[in-house]
Amino acid sequence: MRVTVLVRPKAGILDPQGEAVENSLRQLGFPVGEARVGRVIDLDVDAATTDEARGAIERMCERLLANPLIESYEIEVAE
Amino acid sequence: MRVTVLVRPKAGILDPQGEAVENSLRQLGFPVGEARVGRVIDLDVDAATTDEARGAIERMCERLLANPLIESYEIEVAE
Repeated sequence: MRVTVLVRPKAGILDPQGEAVENSLRQLGFPVGEARVGRVIDLDVDAATTDEARGAIERMCERLLANPLIESYEIEVAE
Repeated sequence: MRVTVLVRPKAGILDPQGEAVENSLRQLGFPVGEARVGRVIDLDVDAATTDEARGAIERMCERLLANPLIESYEIEVAE
């Protein structure tokens, strides 16, 4: 089952990469507001049901894919 | 307008970060298939319509947010 995980810095957490993107875009003449940069992880997971895949991914996020203290994650399972 | 851009390594392009994630997950006992890692960029764009926002983001992707030679991008505009 193909799963996409979006990992983002939580609100209020410093995001230097986002700030760099924001400043560079403005210097190029794009009038953007706040920019935040995170990671997108595409994974093939061996699971019988969507719920099973979601459960496995949650465990992977807690253990490796995200830092729950400073990052939030969102899971999208392709039907 | 809030826009999300997903930037991913194109198929066939080496993705060491994805390989590292894949190997680490297997070592933790998660039987995953291929993993690919890209970036998610959340941006506030000043645009009157969804089409205008999408056009601006495409120009930003070509100039700064993605490397079109080795990366593909996907744009999601929040309605």
